[in-house]
Amino acid sequence: MTPESTITAMARAARAALPALAAATAQKASAIRHAAKRLRERASELAAANAQDMAAGAARGLNAALLDRLALDGSRIEALAAGLETVAALPDPVGEAFRHWTTPNGLAFTRVRVPLGVIGIIYESRPGVTADAAALCLMSGNACLLRGGSEAAHSNEVLLDCMAQGLVEAGLPAAAIQMVPAGDRALVGAMLAAHGLIDVIIPRGGKGLVARVQADARVPVLAHLDGINHLYIDAAADPAKAVALAVNSKLRRPGVCGATETILLDAALSPATARAVLAALADAGCDLRADAAARSLEPRATAATAEDYDTEWLDKVASVATVDGVAGAIAHVQAHSSGHTDAIVTENEATARAFLTAIDSAIVMHNASTQFADGGEFGFGAEIGIATGRLHARGPVALEGLTTYKTLVMGSGQVRA
Amino acid sequence: MTPESTITAMARAARAALPALAAATAQKASAIRHAAKRLRERASELAAANAQDMAAGAARGLNAALLDRLALDGSRIEALAAGLETVAALPDPVGEAFRHWTTPNGLAFTRVRVPLGVIGIIYESRPGVTADAAALCLMSGNACLLRGGSEAAHSNEVLLDCMAQGLVEAGLPAAAIQMVPAGDRALVGAMLAAHGLIDVIIPRGGKGLVARVQADARVPVLAHLDGINHLYIDAAADPAKAVALAVNSKLRRPGVCGATETILLDAALSPATARAVLAALADAGCDLRADAAARSLEPRATAATAEDYDTEWLDKVASVATVDGVAGAIAHVQAHSSGHTDAIVTENEATARAFLTAIDSAIVMHNASTQFADGGEFGFGAEIGIATGRLHARGPVALEGLTTYKTLVMGSGQVRA
Repeated sequence: MTPESTITAMARAARAALPALAAATAQKASAIRHAAKRLRERASELAAANAQDMAAGAARGLNAALLDRLALDGSRIEALAAGLETVAALPDPVGEAFRHWTTPNGLAFTRVRVPLGVIGIIYESRPGVTADAAALCLMSGNACLLRGGSEAAHSNEVLLDCMAQGLVEAGLPAAAIQMVPAGDRALVGAMLAAHGLIDVIIPRGGKGLVARVQADARVPVLAHLDGINHLYIDAAADPAKAVALAVNSKLRRPGVCGATETILLDAALSPATARAVLAALADAGCDLRADAAARSLEPRATAATAEDYDTEWLDKVASVATVDGVAGAIAHVQAHSSGHTDAIVTENEATARAFLTAIDSAIVMHNASTQFADGGEFGFGAEIGIATGRLHARGPVALEGLTTYKTLVMGSGQVRA
Repeated sequence: MTPESTITAMARAARAALPALAAATAQKASAIRHAAKRLRERASELAAANAQDMAAGAARGLNAALLDRLALDGSRIEALAAGLETVAALPDPVGEAFRHWTTPNGLAFTRVRVPLGVIGIIYESRPGVTADAAALCLMSGNACLLRGGSEAAHSNEVLLDCMAQGLVEAGLPAAAIQMVPAGDRALVGAMLAAHGLIDVIIPRGGKGLVARVQADARVPVLAHLDGINHLYIDAAADPAKAVALAVNSKLRRPGVCGATETILLDAALSPATARAVLAALADAGCDLRADAAARSLEPRATAATAEDYDTEWLDKVASVATVDGVAGAIAHVQAHSSGHTDAIVTENEATARAFLTAIDSAIVMHNASTQFADGGEFGFGAEIGIATGRLHARGPVALEGLTTYKTLVMGSGQVRA
């Protein structure tokens, strides 16, 4: 079979499974709970498969960060199973009638949420995606074609089998969750070209993967990129909040996509507050790349280059720039933000409103840590990622973001003039 | 300049115009009303430019249908101007806060509509698109790059100039509405490849154009395709409604994308009703391509081929198939529908519900003519087209479909644990 015919056959089988997932709330949840049970039962088998992957990865010279992403120990497996149970407990978005209107001729319109259809998930070393992405797709009534990294092939095989067991035990077709064989990169190309067969592709991984998918896909893409996020500390900021928000936004987990990368200091901010912010970051081990004004306040800061303000550090490093009030902050953010999450710290409501209105990132915050940019923290119960594109969904994408809608039109025999 | 650098420069200028369009409701409406005024003032100039295009088109051998699409006479120009005024009177979608929620830690979330950004419109011979698509983009706060057909180049030049006059007279940047030079097809390729510069491409034209755009685009596409639409007449249909809906759905305007292409007759429908439906269509000059059962009821019907059920006639031709109740209708529609609009005629609510639930087209109707598949008839005041893709917007797309959202998060200093 060619890569195209392989993907065509898999996508058709996935599509054929869709009617069985419609109006099957209890079965979908049951399948996911059964999968969680199987995952726990087969934890040692999964750990052994993962050990094979880890050994092969080490032999191939994968670096420590990649090996860490690949690893599945007992506690990670338990977290995966618990995550599945969380998804199974979420409300089913499918069938929700979320808008009604009528027209003067008596037609009644209703918008109803429906699944997107067949979703292709392309990911790298993290084997946990096999379980969590599949569960989110299933709970939102979608079928999925998963394409994990070859480095996780043994782990993924056990994980897929647990998901398949869950489907079968709940009376749902196993074709609703399928794994595209790893190793043959032409299969990824065929997925990206499968217009009309795959309804949307979701890449989950590093920038290289996302960029390749965006460049090559003929299928719509929901892209989950990382973020160059800003925290602007206005002259009217509360000093204690400024320090706490800067430290938390940058350092709580510096490697997540919601971490702040650049601290913007209002030139009119009291030097005492600016010093306190910078000292708190430096005291916590954060490397500061700052302009001259900021360096004059914190001797541990080093000089920033122009590129630093376009760099996503994902580490205990922060760029620091001094800006002229909220207008200067807006101009800096518009020039450098990746459109993920940007925040202002101020007690002045008008200033906050100006920032919130002008900044067009997926998430714009006032007096809150950028690390709240997360589906769980938004109250969605889970997330498949943060969308930074402009179509369909922006910000954390959870079950609702994996649906679309149809419009029902109810009449009593109306004809159009 | 290369095609890429031309498009890059135009898209950057368009993006630079976006802040001026934000929170400019009155100015946007004023620009569109001024453009309408200029269009009326310059009607004879526009008609003369159009006569040049028509003469060149006739010399090039364009067929009658293409020449009709190209033509702009006084009444069409007045209709365009009136259409602009309709758009200017629509409520501004930008800034609408359409969802609020809070989380237990006191964070307050608000989703606010924002423009999509820079929209590329690629269209063919209809010069009116230059005015109506530009007005819809502008009213929704977007900048646009228009790429019309070379056959309409003289008409489009005058139309663009009217739009530019409107922008300038309202104090808005002319770069908000730009025309990509016609003739050089490489410029279309550069638009389709302009990921990150153009936020969405909207093709408006025949299937060939839409298919090319969908096949080649690296930019997200909102596609407006035609429809293979079905009207299913159930055994429990009211006979008079069945006749009226079949005639209107098929024949009111057979060439629009919401026209019905296939009539499905329930095998249990009374022969008298089935005969009345088919006779009414045949009496009105509709060519019927029917299966044997339907032919036995209407002698003027001819035998349908298998391909007829996958054909979009856009003419006074209907495919007719006999199906086994609503389950048979659902199976036929799932196999043959293009996902645009499908309808059921029945007085049985449970049967209607089964159809409305199972059919996953963008629009699903009960006892209403498929010809209501139109933004104006939906109450949207205008439309840029009917989206049959699954992401972002489905069905008629008007101002709201030309926006996305951002999420504002309001805190009081919350940090993440």
